[in-house]
Amino acid sequence: MARAWQLTSRPQGMPTTDNAALAEVALPELGEGMVHVRNRWLSVDPYMRGRMNDVKSYVPPFQIGQPMEGGAVGEVVESRDPGFSPGDTVMHMAGWRDEAIVPAASLNKLPSMPGVEPQAFLGNLGLTGGTAYFGLLEAAEAKAGDIVFVSAAAGAVGSAVVQIAKAKGMTVIGSAGGADKCEFVKSLGADEVIDYKAGPVIKSLLAAAPKGIDVYFDNVGGDHLDAALAVARKDARFAMCGMIDGYNSGEPTSLRYFMRIIAMRIRLQGFIYTDYLGSLGDFYRDMGAMMAAGQLKSRDTVVEGLDQTLDAFLGLFTGANTGKMLVRL
Amino acid sequence: MARAWQLTSRPQGMPTTDNAALAEVALPELGEGMVHVRNRWLSVDPYMRGRMNDVKSYVPPFQIGQPMEGGAVGEVVESRDPGFSPGDTVMHMAGWRDEAIVPAASLNKLPSMPGVEPQAFLGNLGLTGGTAYFGLLEAAEAKAGDIVFVSAAAGAVGSAVVQIAKAKGMTVIGSAGGADKCEFVKSLGADEVIDYKAGPVIKSLLAAAPKGIDVYFDNVGGDHLDAALAVARKDARFAMCGMIDGYNSGEPTSLRYFMRIIAMRIRLQGFIYTDYLGSLGDFYRDMGAMMAAGQLKSRDTVVEGLDQTLDAFLGLFTGANTGKMLVRL
Repeated sequence: MARAWQLTSRPQGMPTTDNAALAEVALPELGEGMVHVRNRWLSVDPYMRGRMNDVKSYVPPFQIGQPMEGGAVGEVVESRDPGFSPGDTVMHMAGWRDEAIVPAASLNKLPSMPGVEPQAFLGNLGLTGGTAYFGLLEAAEAKAGDIVFVSAAAGAVGSAVVQIAKAKGMTVIGSAGGADKCEFVKSLGADEVIDYKAGPVIKSLLAAAPKGIDVYFDNVGGDHLDAALAVARKDARFAMCGMIDGYNSGEPTSLRYFMRIIAMRIRLQGFIYTDYLGSLGDFYRDMGAMMAAGQLKSRDTVVEGLDQTLDAFLGLFTGANTGKMLVRL
Repeated sequence: MARAWQLTSRPQGMPTTDNAALAEVALPELGEGMVHVRNRWLSVDPYMRGRMNDVKSYVPPFQIGQPMEGGAVGEVVESRDPGFSPGDTVMHMAGWRDEAIVPAASLNKLPSMPGVEPQAFLGNLGLTGGTAYFGLLEAAEAKAGDIVFVSAAAGAVGSAVVQIAKAKGMTVIGSAGGADKCEFVKSLGADEVIDYKAGPVIKSLLAAAPKGIDVYFDNVGGDHLDAALAVARKDARFAMCGMIDGYNSGEPTSLRYFMRIIAMRIRLQGFIYTDYLGSLGDFYRDMGAMMAAGQLKSRDTVVEGLDQTLDAFLGLFTGANTGKMLVRL
């Protein structure tokens, strides 16, 4: 028997330990073209909150009584596909469980890169790093010389944004909650750091960016987005990546400075990592070079054991992670 | 003596007849390079509300005790500049008054175009038509086949958007308030018309655009913007032109569907007509051709007499106009 986290009820607002349970599930027979994988690393990400709702979005909702899904890195145990052999390290979306039978077509065999641990493909070389890279450089069209503001800068995506922006010659202001996280963001090379728990974001941002900002990488929405609107310079570009503030509240987004979008010709651009899969080759090359040059550190928050996966996920909404949150099995 | 409308106090919320007064002003001596103009047509526009506030925006605020400004078409009475002669028809920004002495550099001599009245340069060939044209085709990058939603579609800008969109092969849904205005929008060629006074915008828009929308031309903000976010298709583009709902309220913008910007990769682009002055040649050519082909009707709301200018302006916020609001002197 395998063990898998199943959605047991749909959360109203903030998800709780009542919304999912670890269950024993029988693995199906290993059919032709299928691969049996034992997971080593599971990814938990804020976007999964959206999949807990029963609404159509860019990814389909989780189904009640079914295992949840998410990025995972594992090892092939048995294969009925010629492309995979026992011992191969693979990345796939059958996370939230210890073992799974998955179609070969949905597996990516991970290349062996010197100095790169396999779990990096759940982080800087995966969804989080790719989200940072494409959001900053494509959606927001950030370029050398820009003043860039990043919220949740100690988080998985945010910490990559800070470092990519610095590597590309931008000025970076990061926001994080608490002295420890702020120090971490500073250690990544941010020019200025805002502690959003220490006072109103708008006041801190005005002090940190007296000339205004050209780019905002939005991971949280809410007060941070409003502050960014308030200090945006003419032709500012906002990459709209996530609004963790709004995922659980169910309240409308309320923005005092929204009308500046017109006067300052601001552009807000929503985007999703998967829009840029066609450019993954460039991404691996460019990110790989930054990683090899030591320009892209990552600090993972690692939780041990499948049992802890739900807690790790819930911790994303209370700031329990610095950098990428991972579960090691 | 000339007569001019002066700002007497800054409005809190909706402007009233207490905020401006008609005063006698002495005209200065006609210096070298200056031109004496007698106005024939004055433009009143929603953006002027912003200039009544004492805040820096894309145009400087009106000053208390000084004549207000705005687009005007007039006739040259006397000139101390070689470029202008008595009898010339000119467009300039010394509106809100009957006569003015203005620098020749700030005057545009209007060409005589067959079938085009001079006041068209305050409408379809001026700020309102240009705002519609560049907002739709440049800021929103609307193209043939797109489903376009336009708010305030019976207004000066909106009615031009409807007609330009139809001339360019788009499907158009217009929103207006009341049966008369809706009928007018329909007469302009809109495929569907929503009466926003008859029920919730979102419900009407869902019915009028069952497949969703690709483009939203926003003149009002508020519920219309929220409804557009709710029904936007993937990669939708919003031209953010004005938010008349918010100009007077002072309340934060509250949007229930704002988070769809991410899932649907929506782009919101603020813009101002003057950003595109470098493309005026193309604009005159293209709009001129549409006007000559009868694809661009205009219905002006004409108010008579300088005394009525303030009432005409205030009427913009209560829906008193269909099409462009003008004052004839």
